[in-house]
Amino acid sequence: MQSRDIIVAPATALGGAIAVIRMSGEGSVALCDSIFKGRKPLSEAKSHTIHYGTICDGERVVDDVVVAVFRAPYSYTGEESVEISIHGSRYIAAEVLRLLCEQGARMAEAGEFSKRALAAGRIDLSQAEAVADLIAAESRAAHAVAATQMRGGYSALLDELREELLNITSLLELELDFSEEDVEFADREKLRSMLEKTDGAVVRLMESFKVGNAIREGVAVAIVGRPNVGKSTLLNRLVGDDRAMVSDIAGTTRDTIEESVVIDDIRFRFVDTAGLHDTDDELEKMGIERTERAIRQAQIVLYMTEPSQSKLELPELGNEQTLLLVVNKIDTSLSRDVEGAIYISAREGEGVDELRKALRATVDTEGLYRGEVVVSNLRHFEALSRAHRDMTQAIAALDYGISEELLAEDIRSAITALAEITGRITNDDILKNIFSHFCIGK
Amino acid sequence: MQSRDIIVAPATALGGAIAVIRMSGEGSVALCDSIFKGRKPLSEAKSHTIHYGTICDGERVVDDVVVAVFRAPYSYTGEESVEISIHGSRYIAAEVLRLLCEQGARMAEAGEFSKRALAAGRIDLSQAEAVADLIAAESRAAHAVAATQMRGGYSALLDELREELLNITSLLELELDFSEEDVEFADREKLRSMLEKTDGAVVRLMESFKVGNAIREGVAVAIVGRPNVGKSTLLNRLVGDDRAMVSDIAGTTRDTIEESVVIDDIRFRFVDTAGLHDTDDELEKMGIERTERAIRQAQIVLYMTEPSQSKLELPELGNEQTLLLVVNKIDTSLSRDVEGAIYISAREGEGVDELRKALRATVDTEGLYRGEVVVSNLRHFEALSRAHRDMTQAIAALDYGISEELLAEDIRSAITALAEITGRITNDDILKNIFSHFCIGK
Repeated sequence: MQSRDIIVAPATALGGAIAVIRMSGEGSVALCDSIFKGRKPLSEAKSHTIHYGTICDGERVVDDVVVAVFRAPYSYTGEESVEISIHGSRYIAAEVLRLLCEQGARMAEAGEFSKRALAAGRIDLSQAEAVADLIAAESRAAHAVAATQMRGGYSALLDELREELLNITSLLELELDFSEEDVEFADREKLRSMLEKTDGAVVRLMESFKVGNAIREGVAVAIVGRPNVGKSTLLNRLVGDDRAMVSDIAGTTRDTIEESVVIDDIRFRFVDTAGLHDTDDELEKMGIERTERAIRQAQIVLYMTEPSQSKLELPELGNEQTLLLVVNKIDTSLSRDVEGAIYISAREGEGVDELRKALRATVDTEGLYRGEVVVSNLRHFEALSRAHRDMTQAIAALDYGISEELLAEDIRSAITALAEITGRITNDDILKNIFSHFCIGK
Repeated sequence: MQSRDIIVAPATALGGAIAVIRMSGEGSVALCDSIFKGRKPLSEAKSHTIHYGTICDGERVVDDVVVAVFRAPYSYTGEESVEISIHGSRYIAAEVLRLLCEQGARMAEAGEFSKRALAAGRIDLSQAEAVADLIAAESRAAHAVAATQMRGGYSALLDELREELLNITSLLELELDFSEEDVEFADREKLRSMLEKTDGAVVRLMESFKVGNAIREGVAVAIVGRPNVGKSTLLNRLVGDDRAMVSDIAGTTRDTIEESVVIDDIRFRFVDTAGLHDTDDELEKMGIERTERAIRQAQIVLYMTEPSQSKLELPELGNEQTLLLVVNKIDTSLSRDVEGAIYISAREGEGVDELRKALRATVDTEGLYRGEVVVSNLRHFEALSRAHRDMTQAIAALDYGISEELLAEDIRSAITALAEITGRITNDDILKNIFSHFCIGK
């Protein structure tokens, strides 16, 4: 299925002191040799060795490089591979890629290296997805979720559940073979309890998605309140402090998303909203509509008020949403009459640490750091939901004495859903969709 | 002089599939071992080998990595070094750097790896500078200039010239030793011709700076002409075509400098100027002043006119400046009455290739591609100028029969100037200035 030509791409971002160009496929060492001049040919090199030399375009020296040689199957892709460390110039990268392509390599598609690792059985699909998540991880918790998944803890659990369901179907199929004799090999009560146990595990995984998704995507916090209550001042303080922290480490400057702040180990996405108040102005109404949408989409609604405000106008919240009540401007007033509120001065910084602690406490990561599996991928959540629906149906079928055929079909469908997560069962559309979100060179 | 602790920094830009962290200094392999778990300790590894394993923070796995081990003196710095390839996440990079620093490494300053390579005699100063130029090179010609310099061709030539001058001083010093006997060991005519030959070589290097600087910094082109003659349309066309070319190669998207365009092998910096015309408006006057400054600073002035324009108002140009006369809007008129002009339609694209050829032809790179040394560094040009001034003075001293002491001093001063280029003679200020312009990790 998989084409097995030689693929090449920059594996690192360009613009640093060095950059790495990665090439994979049977014959990639010999291909590299055709433009490499070193002390001896790379074709004589053992796996996992590094060689200094030059990349040449005919007589013209393009760059001084070091080349790392990986022999099959001991590489990321499981194929013969080379990694060329060049000086980090875009011009040189483009030249080296051009030369390698002229010699017969082709530019890799997004995620194609990981796709090959998958095809070679080096990793499963959920691990491949975890690699992409790991690269994107911006907080310790997001990193922990991806790292656990990448290291295959998740895949083992899914295999166990699948195994359990396969056991059930084999019992049922045995009955079907003997169906004319009207025997029941499988104790209905035992089948039911097996199914319930498996379904319970699936439901626990589904439940972990709430935390997992928040960790992966960042916890959405809508800051709401009347105009001039100090919402933007608070946001600036939260963002400002975080920025200062990040820039302590040289070379880690990140693309700033204005409202994204890491508190301890969790990333929060703060949405500063237009002040809530009655108005007839059309433009202002649109702003307030956006505020209402931000509130609906938030996991946490941070309602901000000030001591002088006579009454609270709390928005209606869903079951899964958390309300944090914050009274600002305590530098101007000593009144402490709002029950359950956190008292801060966004301008002076007083109380902001307490607010941070309250925000952080809304995300329960105890299980995560104990090593429990946390589902963070929407595709997985959807597959788990399908498996859960199938099992619920199967349990109902058992209760109502519906035929073994339909029962077995529900369970087989649940097995398929679970197998899709690790890629044991898959199709080209799913693969294409997953790997198109990878970066080039991975 | 050089502190010899263990330094660490990201060697690649962050944000790709992988990133490389570079660490150098005696003991860096053992230091890496303290957070690395592999099949066997890195301390047992030979030079130029690669090892798969995990980076751990206590029990917590931070990342799956491959570590390359370099033993002294076979590394870029000449010191024991390791390069850790991690997944390209900023979070992981920050974590690995933190762990290594906790174990005793410290973050490298800008250019510190190259500084150590210099101290170890692995490269000379002009080569170290060439590395920075090579990384910044955005065109084939800029790459060729830097690559020649990095490979030391330049250093050899400078050493030759220095040698020649040293010969002259030893002859002179021999005379000084015997000065009371009033002998002339050195034939004055021969001395003069030796000096002139050396000075001639220095002058040729100085002359190459005009091309070298244009190649390195990009050739400044001021686009001038009356309002609405089509200057911005031309600029958009030139930039647009270039952008399309660059984006053919995935992963090479660059920081856009609006007006920077590579034509063939040379980068041009186009400055779109305010239309030239008489005005009493203060704001418009300021615009025209800026236009005049752009004209003064340009290597090429591209004067744009259109068929309907009655007379040309060409700006005054300096000796070193080139004028290109361009008649735009040939899609609206057939008249061809401006002598020596290039006829284009910026809107339709007609004639623009011819204009590109004319622009490219203003830069003479024949010598460069024949392998001749081209000076592109202002610091080098200034040192060469000082050497030239000293030698001119020495030749005059010979002609007027000035004492050997003064003559010898001029030549020694010229030797010092040449030695500064390769760093044989140097001081901390120069070094600090040079390396502070390097990126971290180089």
